Amino acid sequence: MDEFSLIERFFSQPNAGAAQANSALQQGIGDDCAILRVPLGKELAFSLDTLVAGVHFPVDADPGEIAWRLLGAAVSDLAAMGAEPNSFTLALTLPELTEQWLKKFSQQLAIAADKYQITLAGGDTTKGPLTLSVQVQGFVEQGQALLRSGAAEGDFICVTGNLGDSRAGLELLDVEQPDTAQRYLLQRYYRPVPRVATGLLLRAYASACIDISDGLLADLNHILRRSEVGARLDADSIPMSDAMRQVAGDNALQWALGGGEDFELCFTVPALQWPALQQQLQQHQVAVSTIGVVTAAIELQIFRDGQWQHIAASGYNHFSSE
Amino acid sequence: MDEFSLIERFFSQPNAGAAQANSALQQGIGDDCAILRVPLGKELAFSLDTLVAGVHFPVDADPGEIAWRLLGAAVSDLAAMGAEPNSFTLALTLPELTEQWLKKFSQQLAIAADKYQITLAGGDTTKGPLTLSVQVQGFVEQGQALLRSGAAEGDFICVTGNLGDSRAGLELLDVEQPDTAQRYLLQRYYRPVPRVATGLLLRAYASACIDISDGLLADLNHILRRSEVGARLDADSIPMSDAMRQVAGDNALQWALGGGEDFELCFTVPALQWPALQQQLQQHQVAVSTIGVVTAAIELQIFRDGQWQHIAASGYNHFSSE
Repeated sequence: MDEFSLIERFFSQPNAGAAQANSALQQGIGDDCAILRVPLGKELAFSLDTLVAGVHFPVDADPGEIAWRLLGAAVSDLAAMGAEPNSFTLALTLPELTEQWLKKFSQQLAIAADKYQITLAGGDTTKGPLTLSVQVQGFVEQGQALLRSGAAEGDFICVTGNLGDSRAGLELLDVEQPDTAQRYLLQRYYRPVPRVATGLLLRAYASACIDISDGLLADLNHILRRSEVGARLDADSIPMSDAMRQVAGDNALQWALGGGEDFELCFTVPALQWPALQQQLQQHQVAVSTIGVVTAAIELQIFRDGQWQHIAASGYNHFSSE
Repeated sequence: MDEFSLIERFFSQPNAGAAQANSALQQGIGDDCAILRVPLGKELAFSLDTLVAGVHFPVDADPGEIAWRLLGAAVSDLAAMGAEPNSFTLALTLPELTEQWLKKFSQQLAIAADKYQITLAGGDTTKGPLTLSVQVQGFVEQGQALLRSGAAEGDFICVTGNLGDSRAGLELLDVEQPDTAQRYLLQRYYRPVPRVATGLLLRAYASACIDISDGLLADLNHILRRSEVGARLDADSIPMSDAMRQVAGDNALQWALGGGEDFELCFTVPALQWPALQQQLQQHQVAVSTIGVVTAAIELQIFRDGQWQHIAASGYNHFSSE
């Protein structure tokens, strides 16, 4: 089986229906390039993400779970811009052409693509150490993309959902018979759900937005740097699930602030816009927490245990209070 | 040095000028997504390509040469569609963050990007076995892209430039003091020049087009399959450089038909369009050879040594006459 028939067999078929339903995609898999017609008045938002075996997931990870995480994480970048998903390309580097691996992977990728309403439009398959890159592409009204650079003094800082769940799920990978709470955390780890609908809602209200891939502090810090502002956070307002608290114990706040890959949105909103946005969010049943305010001073402080503490903005688990 | 400062340091700076000059690119490196405004009346052509160390180039290859081959091969896919290069994203997976490697790579990438008039718009940097993926993006007038599927009976089959040079260059990698002819072949191997201007010219005349990355026969066969036609070729018309013939000896025709990575264009053109196209090509000093004709019968034959021979369409070096 050569590369060409492999791509045709595993990746052309499952997505054929979706490609036909995608009126913007003039030419999908099978030519030197794919061709996309961006609707009038819209711009293209695009982002490229890579997952490496042994770094971002275990070498023997279930191919279906890899597909879900790969696409979920990538689509989350579209959500963070307030963009509507349209199409994606896949660079798949595989040690060998294992039919079983490809079958599982392509099947779940097609299901995930269907769920996120995004069409596989092309890609490249090569031989080498297991590495996957995805470029996602979406549409956003001209000039309306949610950038990181718009936060201003006095804006509220908000996050969707709960933080630290994915970090807690990581602790549970070896649990053989997970209970309900553990299953919730494992699901959050394996199948992050990009906040696409919420990103679309935010577009009319938020001043800046980012998705939380590296951890709240690290990602919030990108907004602060690009906007040239600081932030004051309230530790008691950081949203955490009971399930996560149970697994984390004393590490709960640390995981919520520093644990990555929750793929929730962190955004800032001018105080004047907040009531209208809050109404919209409630109407669409989106859980959002206000966790702090933007300051003119270039600082990052958190109110915790009755006092203000300066904190480092580093991601992952490097949380330190100075 | 964390990932973020690394990207900023090596990839934001050199291309900053180009990004400003790229009026379609509304937002480049530094946000969750880049934002592109496709000009009115145009469509986006995009293609994703991967190079893996130890497969597509030696692990210790010069980083600058990797940059040129990576971008040259990717832009060639835009040329094959008749698209004008605009922007690209880079997925760079590196075993470690070696400053020297990154410096050489990013410098040459910036020079190549400048030459091919394409702007680095975003990407991802990860730790892992050396692997590079590039998505190139370009513009083409709505409905005018050169597809593989338009070849029809009686069309002439043409190729640009000379074939087999890159394959010959591969034989010379260890030559310490290459002569002029050898330098030409090594240049053809290391720095393939995508035929962008020729692709733009062809748009008004050609019925199908592809770039020769896997070898003439393999790539022509993609056109034949998609167009549901066959081809008859004339061995004596296959363009080969004297330098290549000298290195190849008895293998010359085999290398020209099966050697990959020349990144010349193979296209078909209706006989009625040929005179006008030929005039255009001469005016722009583009060397083009007519090497055969499209047949209604699903076949692939070559006239060689005074007789017609059926040939297999496989790429690389698997040339066999049956």
